[in-house]
Amino acid sequence: VTSDRILVELFVIFAAAKVAGEGFRRVGQPPVIGELLVGVLLGARSLGVIHDSEVHRVLQEFGAIVLLFMIGLDTTPGDIRRVGSRSLTVGASGIVLPFACGLAFTLATGRGSDEAMFIGAAMVATSVGITARVLADLGVVHEIESRIILGAAVIDDVLGLLVLAIVSGLAQDNLSPAHIAGLGIGSVAFVAIVGVYGHRAIDVAADRIGGSELRRAPLVIAIGICLGLSALAGTIGLAAIIGAFLAGMAFSERAGEWQLEEQIEPVYQLLVPFFFVITGAQVDPAAFTEPETLGLVAAVTTLAVVGKLAGCGLAAWGMERRSMVIIGTGMVPRGEVGIIVASVGLATDMLGPRLYAVIVAMSIITTVIAPPALKMLFAPRVHAAEVARMRRTGDVEGIGG
Amino acid sequence: VTSDRILVELFVIFAAAKVAGEGFRRVGQPPVIGELLVGVLLGARSLGVIHDSEVHRVLQEFGAIVLLFMIGLDTTPGDIRRVGSRSLTVGASGIVLPFACGLAFTLATGRGSDEAMFIGAAMVATSVGITARVLADLGVVHEIESRIILGAAVIDDVLGLLVLAIVSGLAQDNLSPAHIAGLGIGSVAFVAIVGVYGHRAIDVAADRIGGSELRRAPLVIAIGICLGLSALAGTIGLAAIIGAFLAGMAFSERAGEWQLEEQIEPVYQLLVPFFFVITGAQVDPAAFTEPETLGLVAAVTTLAVVGKLAGCGLAAWGMERRSMVIIGTGMVPRGEVGIIVASVGLATDMLGPRLYAVIVAMSIITTVIAPPALKMLFAPRVHAAEVARMRRTGDVEGIGG
Repeated sequence: VTSDRILVELFVIFAAAKVAGEGFRRVGQPPVIGELLVGVLLGARSLGVIHDSEVHRVLQEFGAIVLLFMIGLDTTPGDIRRVGSRSLTVGASGIVLPFACGLAFTLATGRGSDEAMFIGAAMVATSVGITARVLADLGVVHEIESRIILGAAVIDDVLGLLVLAIVSGLAQDNLSPAHIAGLGIGSVAFVAIVGVYGHRAIDVAADRIGGSELRRAPLVIAIGICLGLSALAGTIGLAAIIGAFLAGMAFSERAGEWQLEEQIEPVYQLLVPFFFVITGAQVDPAAFTEPETLGLVAAVTTLAVVGKLAGCGLAAWGMERRSMVIIGTGMVPRGEVGIIVASVGLATDMLGPRLYAVIVAMSIITTVIAPPALKMLFAPRVHAAEVARMRRTGDVEGIGG
Repeated sequence: VTSDRILVELFVIFAAAKVAGEGFRRVGQPPVIGELLVGVLLGARSLGVIHDSEVHRVLQEFGAIVLLFMIGLDTTPGDIRRVGSRSLTVGASGIVLPFACGLAFTLATGRGSDEAMFIGAAMVATSVGITARVLADLGVVHEIESRIILGAAVIDDVLGLLVLAIVSGLAQDNLSPAHIAGLGIGSVAFVAIVGVYGHRAIDVAADRIGGSELRRAPLVIAIGICLGLSALAGTIGLAAIIGAFLAGMAFSERAGEWQLEEQIEPVYQLLVPFFFVITGAQVDPAAFTEPETLGLVAAVTTLAVVGKLAGCGLAAWGMERRSMVIIGTGMVPRGEVGIIVASVGLATDMLGPRLYAVIVAMSIITTVIAPPALKMLFAPRVHAAEVARMRRTGDVEGIGG
């Protein structure tokens, strides 16, 4: 039956992810790269292990939600407040420059404005998921640069999806100003309300939840709120993972008391690999055999890297130079967000297959090059952070296994 | 986008399951009934919250796999050995009598042999999932009757799926003796090999797994083996959940040392409700407005209950009378297994829509009546068992929340 075939796929994805991740960990690389690359391999049409299906897309999203919820649990509202204005500057500046670069380059190569806008939009949004996992793997989530990056990436996602909504509206000639305004106001209101009042609501409910006779009540309620806010974010046109991140943040101040990270971690171990493997599998390596495509990939990827490095790095002006480079680098991965933009463009016929392949390649390359770069940049601090983290949690392996 | 709609559904399913389960728990009923009934409600076409889709079927199966893995973790091979021959008698006797009843009744009402065989097959297999959850909710998994029931239910599932394979082969006139023999030998070999050698293989690998520098290694390897054996069971034509149960059993002797139950429980809390709600949702209440259908439901359900009570209860001859009734009652729920048979019959045009609805109703009714009956039968012992369990695990709520 169908579900038996899917079970075999799920087993192969899970096992391959864990083996590849562990292999990369042993040679000192973040496991996430192993999971992504094994995904590219499994997704290749010649192997044909992973087919594009609704089940895979839901599992992929489920994995991303658990990932961002876990990262949110580790990010207290105070952490964000301390870096808030800086994150806003970095995020906004990291939108404007890459969008302009993508738009200008595509127009300069003689293509139409629809394609140019999609290329621009695809270059905008940083993948919170990839960056967050790499920072978690390195054990530097609590560093000031990581806070700025995560804050900026969330802002980036909100603004980036707004850009995508506008661009696809413009391209389809059905842009209603009321629609754009509604989406904009809704997005900002959602993030502001949940971000500011979420943890206060949990504070108020804390005695009831923690004092429930159900030992697992805090976990069940946290999962319910995570799913609910993810669904709500998706419904109002934001990425669902933004809801998951905000849900995690709302519970972050109680995470220790209720052992939420410890309890969510098995769910993380089970579901998050599906996100990375399936994201990798969406690339078809065979698309990159033509020289012209390769040239475009090189040009667009370079612009994508330079745009974020310059836009975000310079927005961190006043910090140490290494911190500026770290922040710029942390914002480079486009990951699944770039791929989502590309797929919307393809589905609405605004992007041809070649530019689609180019955006996907750019998303993957920016995703693959950032982790080792971040690892090098953070190297002097990783050891110290690791020791501090072990002391704090008694957890040697953490969520990086 | 599609995945946003699905996220909303997942949230509604999860929240409704937890609220309904907690409501039933508060009035002293097993939460699983609340989850099933809320599923029937959500699945009603008039509400239209849950649509039949591949995503739901995969989530349903995923939930069943986690459920059976958890039950397997709590069932050491020694437990099964102690009740082995009794379970085999109970299981076999619980196959023969219900199949004969279903076949004879359907032929007596003037229907064809294809339909008669499908009705017989649908009456055969006990739902391990439902029974196991009820026993877990009552906290009586370690009672001797529970062991016999679970052992017999596993044997039942193996034999029942074999019956289904033969019946659908016969009905489709493409029954190759080699195919049936292959399926039979494969099934028995799989259960015997994994059941007997699984925990020994884990014993041999234990030092490597437990001594790994990855703190989560035992969990990750257990999940991997659970997915792998489920996929393998599905591939050779067995129910995937049989693989999950055997995987859990293979790890059962190390479950305490590696804290597997404690770590799997959050996954259980997240995924198992999907199994019960979606199983409930597959019933369309509107199908039961015709008087003739209701008469058939009453007759078939009565035969299904009497067949298992007599067949299994009498096979427990020599035990206390209450134990015989408990064992017969524990084997009554047909749950998802009956529904699977019905859907195969519908898909292959061997069953008309009316008999399909009848089988589904029989499956649900047998599933809904067994838990309160078991609760009453076990009542004298539940309190004592609960106290013992709390002492053993320090867990007041257990997997019943």
